[in-house]
Amino acid sequence: MASIEDVAKRAGVSIATVSRVLNGTGYVSESTEIKVLKAIRELGYVPHFSAKSLARKKSFKVGVIISKRIDELLKTNVGEFYKIILDAIENYAALYKISLEIVLLEDVLKTSEVEFDGFIIVGSDASEEEINFLSSKAKVVLVDHYIDGLRIDSIVSDGYDGVFYVTRNFIDAGYNRIVHIHGPLKYYGFRDRYNGYVSAMQRYGKLPILFEYDDLHDEVDSVLKRVLRDWVPQVIICSNDVIALRVLSKLKEWGYKIPNEISVVGFDDIPDAEKEGLSTLRVQKAEMGINAVKRLNEILTGQSLHPHKQCLYTSYIKRNSSLI
Amino acid sequence: MASIEDVAKRAGVSIATVSRVLNGTGYVSESTEIKVLKAIRELGYVPHFSAKSLARKKSFKVGVIISKRIDELLKTNVGEFYKIILDAIENYAALYKISLEIVLLEDVLKTSEVEFDGFIIVGSDASEEEINFLSSKAKVVLVDHYIDGLRIDSIVSDGYDGVFYVTRNFIDAGYNRIVHIHGPLKYYGFRDRYNGYVSAMQRYGKLPILFEYDDLHDEVDSVLKRVLRDWVPQVIICSNDVIALRVLSKLKEWGYKIPNEISVVGFDDIPDAEKEGLSTLRVQKAEMGINAVKRLNEILTGQSLHPHKQCLYTSYIKRNSSLI
Repeated sequence: MASIEDVAKRAGVSIATVSRVLNGTGYVSESTEIKVLKAIRELGYVPHFSAKSLARKKSFKVGVIISKRIDELLKTNVGEFYKIILDAIENYAALYKISLEIVLLEDVLKTSEVEFDGFIIVGSDASEEEINFLSSKAKVVLVDHYIDGLRIDSIVSDGYDGVFYVTRNFIDAGYNRIVHIHGPLKYYGFRDRYNGYVSAMQRYGKLPILFEYDDLHDEVDSVLKRVLRDWVPQVIICSNDVIALRVLSKLKEWGYKIPNEISVVGFDDIPDAEKEGLSTLRVQKAEMGINAVKRLNEILTGQSLHPHKQCLYTSYIKRNSSLI
Repeated sequence: MASIEDVAKRAGVSIATVSRVLNGTGYVSESTEIKVLKAIRELGYVPHFSAKSLARKKSFKVGVIISKRIDELLKTNVGEFYKIILDAIENYAALYKISLEIVLLEDVLKTSEVEFDGFIIVGSDASEEEINFLSSKAKVVLVDHYIDGLRIDSIVSDGYDGVFYVTRNFIDAGYNRIVHIHGPLKYYGFRDRYNGYVSAMQRYGKLPILFEYDDLHDEVDSVLKRVLRDWVPQVIICSNDVIALRVLSKLKEWGYKIPNEISVVGFDDIPDAEKEGLSTLRVQKAEMGINAVKRLNEILTGQSLHPHKQCLYTSYIKRNSSLI
């Protein structure tokens, strides 16, 4: 059976270079990478990735970072979204013998001595500067967060894809008056879903009709009055379930027949969405947590070549708040 | 040591359900998934992912699909981009004992009997209908291609992120007259890079200045005359290296000093970019191929829960065609 030495010899490179190609640590030029991969193929060499990672003695220590805001949310049912992600991280880390500690963003930024091998930052409160600071201390994977041009590994739900999908489904079924109520566009998640709606409407020659609503500061009455001022929409697609549930309850209070007059769709699939019969795009919350652990483990064990953003597609869950 | 039976018992579910959670095959509700992961953690159960995939007897047969257009390109130096991806797929598949066959898109669509376990579709020529047809026959992973709302696994380069990054770098360095020459926006890749440029310009309060250029049908003279009509830009960011190299050569022919008067930046990092000293955003071509094989193997061996899009960040390679 071929050894790593045989591969190095045939490719005309050092063993260290073969190891860099296999483990993705450090820079290797494209032409060298191809030479090494070719030698591996010709010799039928099988690297022992698995043996290596299972047998490894060292147990990694990872800080799971949440903001004070999320820590507060976790005490309410709005925080269920993050609870599922955190549970999945905790449960899955055990498979990789990773020891976890949950730390507050505000605290870890103040600490000068960092004893972690890696960080999983959950949620979108960390700023670009804060993420840069943390990634200078240890390997970082972001969950439900991405920052343009920063090139930090991220695991996000594909809001663009999901909202495009559901908007197009309504268009295909003959609906015309489809509006989007979105949260503040400074947040990546809201912006991504907004782009999915706009893109689907434009692709099919329809004018996007948009309303901004900040669920922390605005009254749902006032935004809905604007939505309903000129005509009654057939479909209201909302940035998240919290907004959609408020819209749903207010429309019912005002006597609109749901879903016959107006279909309402959310995003996330929080537990209240199921309780209230809200149709929504389900974010794979547990899997976001699981994949963050997998990805950080790949990085810490040097099994990965290059940072990327992983966008998990959503699933459309039809309930009683919409006709399709 | 805990067994899969112990996990099933503790979680109060069947062994089949534990297996579904571990392998990601079939539907498992979020609450069940969490129960199973919790039991795994409490019992310290270690599943034998690796043993399973290494020891597996069956060798998968995968069709690597390219269009006739790409097959033609492979005979020229413009096809180098695809050649690197195809080489990486071929070399890396050997690690997983996957047997490959390169097939033409136009041929495989005509075949009624498909004997493949999976397809890797390279490039953006396959239409939505064609991809739907192929994914009804076998598992599909797209490379350098994504279709809105279709929810098929994709490996792409993150053009948005890369062009955002380089545009912002020029803005940060005090440049004002930054223009973008882009290919036809019906292609996902061009659209993605276009969005990165527009987003960076808007974020910093600048008006995006855009010129469309179809490298198959348009003369570079006519688009460059439009670009230069009112004033001389300081920076021209192009959709790909082919466009950038034509722009570079024409500007030099017309007597412009590169990079002192105008910086030119491409996208892809094809071999000619290095030869001509073109600054560009390097697409991790070999890694796109490698990750496509990894991902398809995950899907075929049932190790993955949910489809996603993987966006590999680009690297900026500064050469002589730009000041920064």
